[in-house]
Amino acid sequence: MDYAKPLPNYLVTRYHGWKATSYTENQGWYRRLAKEGQRPRAMVISCCDSRVHVTSIFGADQGEFFIHRNIANLVPPYAPDGDHHGTSATVEYAVTVLKVAHLIVLGHSQCGGVQGCIDMCKGHAPELEEKTSFVGRWMDILKPRFSEVEDIVDATEQARQFERQAVVASLENLMTFPFIESAVKSGELSLHGLWTDIGEGGLECFDPKGKKFLPV
Amino acid sequence: MDYAKPLPNYLVTRYHGWKATSYTENQGWYRRLAKEGQRPRAMVISCCDSRVHVTSIFGADQGEFFIHRNIANLVPPYAPDGDHHGTSATVEYAVTVLKVAHLIVLGHSQCGGVQGCIDMCKGHAPELEEKTSFVGRWMDILKPRFSEVEDIVDATEQARQFERQAVVASLENLMTFPFIESAVKSGELSLHGLWTDIGEGGLECFDPKGKKFLPV
Amino acid sequence: MDYAKPLPNYLVTRYHGWKATSYTENQGWYRRLAKEGQRPRAMVISCCDSRVHVTSIFGADQGEFFIHRNIANLVPPYAPDGDHHGTSATVEYAVTVLKVAHLIVLGHSQCGGVQGCIDMCKGHAPELEEKTSFVGRWMDILKPRFSEVEDIVDATEQARQFERQAVVASLENLMTFPFIESAVKSGELSLHGLWTDIGEGGLECFDPKGKKFLPV
Amino acid sequence: MDYAKPLPNYLVTRYHGWKATSYTENQGWYRRLAKEGQRPRAMVISCCDSRVHVTSIFGADQGEFFIHRNIANLVPPYAPDGDHHGTSATVEYAVTVLKVAHLIVLGHSQCGGVQGCIDMCKGHAPELEEKTSFVGRWMDILKPRFSEVEDIVDATEQARQFERQAVVASLENLMTFPFIESAVKSGELSLHGLWTDIGEGGLECFDPKGKKFLPV
Repeated sequence: MDYAKPLPNYLVTRYHGWKATSYTENQGWYRRLAKEGQRPRAMVISCCDSRVHVTSIFGADQGEFFIHRNIANLVPPYAPDGDHHGTSATVEYAVTVLKVAHLIVLGHSQCGGVQGCIDMCKGHAPELEEKTSFVGRWMDILKPRFSEVEDIVDATEQARQFERQAVVASLENLMTFPFIESAVKSGELSLHGLWTDIGEGGLECFDPKGKKFLPV
Repeated sequence: MDYAKPLPNYLVTRYHGWKATSYTENQGWYRRLAKEGQRPRAMVISCCDSRVHVTSIFGADQGEFFIHRNIANLVPPYAPDGDHHGTSATVEYAVTVLKVAHLIVLGHSQCGGVQGCIDMCKGHAPELEEKTSFVGRWMDILKPRFSEVEDIVDATEQARQFERQAVVASLENLMTFPFIESAVKSGELSLHGLWTDIGEGGLECFDPKGKKFLPV
Repeated sequence: MDYAKPLPNYLVTRYHGWKATSYTENQGWYRRLAKEGQRPRAMVISCCDSRVHVTSIFGADQGEFFIHRNIANLVPPYAPDGDHHGTSATVEYAVTVLKVAHLIVLGHSQCGGVQGCIDMCKGHAPELEEKTSFVGRWMDILKPRFSEVEDIVDATEQARQFERQAVVASLENLMTFPFIESAVKSGELSLHGLWTDIGEGGLECFDPKGKKFLPV
Repeated sequence: MDYAKPLPNYLVTRYHGWKATSYTENQGWYRRLAKEGQRPRAMVISCCDSRVHVTSIFGADQGEFFIHRNIANLVPPYAPDGDHHGTSATVEYAVTVLKVAHLIVLGHSQCGGVQGCIDMCKGHAPELEEKTSFVGRWMDILKPRFSEVEDIVDATEQARQFERQAVVASLENLMTFPFIESAVKSGELSLHGLWTDIGEGGLECFDPKGKKFLPV
């Protein structure tokens, strides 16, 4: 365990700054959150990408969002086979224990995971096709949807559409979980699909009627 | 697809506020991030818990942290078996593609996932032991470590120590990934283990020498 | 060359301390910065004054700020006459090569350069008016603005207002550089004017609407 | 003036953190510095490069170093022609007004300015040779020294040696200023030449005897 290192100075300094300001100003609320437990209104599933800042975009503070972040904001289909399923565990906890009212899938532009999947589908990324590639095997979740965007000639536009497909795929896979389907049907839970443009700060929401994304 | 709903008003309102202020003030940076790609200095693995706000604690802004969040901030051991491994995919992308310099595992107090694992280990949570329980199967990753805290009588103290064990388990599992072990050995990557007290705003760092957590 | 001396001991000692701690904890990041090059988000133009610590005030670490420091944080107007223009070279490099997103001019209280300029304007500093005075000739950049604060009776208040004028003058001169004007207009770059009170730790930001400095 | 923008959030947050911690802990000292004026022991001339952190390397705090930063840490020769000479103004102020005891020139590896100068000398950078290139005209200060490294075949080694030449050139140019020459001769001032390796955290000092740089 001698590989673990002390926290870099710059983070120590910033932490002490937070403790002396934000924490101090919100101490009562943080103590109450600790004592009474969390009660988030929504769960957000977004990408790990450092450019996607869900709490910033939505001005969210401690206690508001239960957040799962993985590569390309993907949810695999329901598969109760006894294996470790990290993403499935997060939605199970959010819906059955915390009983969140909203489940939001947030995709984004310039997604490296989605681009890797396109490269795989086009046969340009043999390294991602290897059994040992965790990113490749994870992106297999999205692969079947490539047919939806295969004919788009412009590479940028194709990527943006496939990023939106990743959101739709996750929404559809979420509905394969019995506890989600029943919560949605009973009106206890609503699902939302979003896609954000990093450079322009845009935000689009999946419109169930027209089956496309419209600016919020 | 008629289950997908428009974004709740309160989030639409907040988004428009962000767009008109923060986005506008940082437009140049966001566009540059979109165009040139991300280059985060660190990856953080934290819990989905809505009370854990890693960007807030560390004053981090767009582009700084590649963030993976799952139940109880756990990393499973290296297992290149061709299945979907969401968490393994995130560390593979961060270390081999983005080449982050720091990998931080951030545990926290009052962790519901860790408490569930304790309940399972004590035989008080038969529902988590079922094959169909995603949370139960995910927490299996931590189960073998229960012997380390089994003798602690005080339940609160036992939970806090087990939360710290979850951080240490993740650090050890991270070292089973060949690409992480080699990056650590070459000095390109350093690992850091943290635990935060939600109510008191405390932060502790795993000390490799004394094998315990010390206040930052 | 026998005038060059070995580094004083106190700095040798501190350097070795830094090497054994901060450097070691951040080795991966420093190596990456060396290999991939810098990508600072912001440029800061501040005074050389030893009491102004821009990295401290903003908790900035290696790689974050491209920093130019000169007497009184002044930027001369655009003058492509083939002479050596050290300050103009720094902004050219920051904006056209590094493509920083923010350009911050940071003024401060008790500025010796600004006080010298006031003394010159009042005819109390003949030595600064000599052709051979580099400080005097440098402060000529600010001189035309003295009319803005000439009527302020209180000497301390006059100095503080003139220090703020130095920031505004630099912002206006920055806009005379074609590459800055175009980057600002396209939204790739934003300018910010700040003034800090050394003794009280205050920080004010120039408000474009009201044309005055307001506490941050 | 409507181009000036509010300070980005992340810097506002960090500033408030600094105010509540570092400033508060050092208030007495900062107030004394404001009231009595600065009394820095040394002046440092370093590059604007965001990867060079002179206060970090030397553990320096408010009041210790009078710092000038420009492209490639260059000092032009003494030229009292009545024009704006930003760098000359900084050394004049440091030596004649503040009477610093040490004047340190700090060069560094991977210097973009020095690389640009090499490209110019090899005829590979016509854009830097244009009259309107501020960076090009600034690097003209270093150009005459290219003969010293012209024969070095390895490009990396050539750049590192030219970076060290930039330090020596600045030291020699400093000695052309009458007030510096006399302060050095009287023993009131000593000059020091340093070069730091960003990736490896190394530090070398110019040795006047052997006319080369040796590890500190």
